[in-house]
Amino acid sequence: MTGWIKSPADIYAQSFATIRAEAALGRVPADLTDLAIRVVHACGMTDIVAHLAWSEGGGQAGRAALVAGKPILVDAEMVAHGIIRRNLPAANSVICTLGEVSAVEARDAATTRSALAVDKWLPHLDGAVVAIGNAPTAVFRLLELVAAGAPRPALVLGFAVGFVGAVESKDALIASGLPHVALTGRRGGSAMAAAAVNALARGLE
Amino acid sequence: MTGWIKSPADIYAQSFATIRAEAALGRVPADLTDLAIRVVHACGMTDIVAHLAWSEGGGQAGRAALVAGKPILVDAEMVAHGIIRRNLPAANSVICTLGEVSAVEARDAATTRSALAVDKWLPHLDGAVVAIGNAPTAVFRLLELVAAGAPRPALVLGFAVGFVGAVESKDALIASGLPHVALTGRRGGSAMAAAAVNALARGLE
Repeated sequence: MTGWIKSPADIYAQSFATIRAEAALGRVPADLTDLAIRVVHACGMTDIVAHLAWSEGGGQAGRAALVAGKPILVDAEMVAHGIIRRNLPAANSVICTLGEVSAVEARDAATTRSALAVDKWLPHLDGAVVAIGNAPTAVFRLLELVAAGAPRPALVLGFAVGFVGAVESKDALIASGLPHVALTGRRGGSAMAAAAVNALARGLE
Repeated sequence: MTGWIKSPADIYAQSFATIRAEAALGRVPADLTDLAIRVVHACGMTDIVAHLAWSEGGGQAGRAALVAGKPILVDAEMVAHGIIRRNLPAANSVICTLGEVSAVEARDAATTRSALAVDKWLPHLDGAVVAIGNAPTAVFRLLELVAAGAPRPALVLGFAVGFVGAVESKDALIASGLPHVALTGRRGGSAMAAAAVNALARGLE
């Protein structure tokens, strides 16, 4: 097993160079270029850039929220554990409320744990950065709450994944008027959502 | 925001039905069908089934190791947090040693933190289930250690991701003679690695 590259700096540099060479980054605005690169890096797929959607100024809004010390609300522990804490500009809180909701509570409320956990974001939602990397039902519930008058987050990173509701939830997010960056289609995941946060926090460093 | 599916049971059932309808599962052996379905479910891509590689009996070996109470060794906290603990058949330990290695130690050893963390698996490696969802260098280091006489794991789940070493590390795993299930190519990730463990632990339940 000789010849494998062991230098973390070299690995990052070669990775980002490959992504810049292969990914169609020309369509991505300046405030989201690093985000697009980091999301591609997290999943190994350069073609996803063509499927990213965003609202104008989304990257700047997310960055400003982090600098202002706003919390990061995530739908899954995997997202929380993908965020590089030391890179956050204001030692921002990373809040995952999923563990506060039991399966029995969700059953009694006739919804998913992920959706019910979003209700517990309410005290933290105003101006926050939301990163959803798993559950379409978390996206749907967030949109319901905001439509009903809940505080608006500064940015919603929509990377819900899968075969039931992922496409529709992200399309609904894009149509909602909320500031967003989203990957349309079935693809998504915790690693992409965390990578998006990491890019807003510190670019490619 | 009306009409979204809120029942977790319905979401799972519809997801798995869609995957069975779309994915080319015919090439997958019986002991890995649930694993293939869960990995597809985790990433939203049915086409990955064509890129799965395995050694004969790999699924059975991994399942037997879990039933026997062997530990699960993972390369990233994200993998650890994607494993559904209550479904593990023997309250198996999930061990991530990455946090035991500092960036300074890795620099002094001229390697990555992920590779150095694999050295700390040695006391747990014999007969274990290894799940790698992030770092190619963890795969490379594991293969080096085993080639040098380290205890052999029961199964290696190879889902390293990215642009530098991911392809090569998984090809080396497949060529190594170690029992394995791997996704060839650049794609992979923590969610897929965790999904593979979850399938070995409890199928599609």
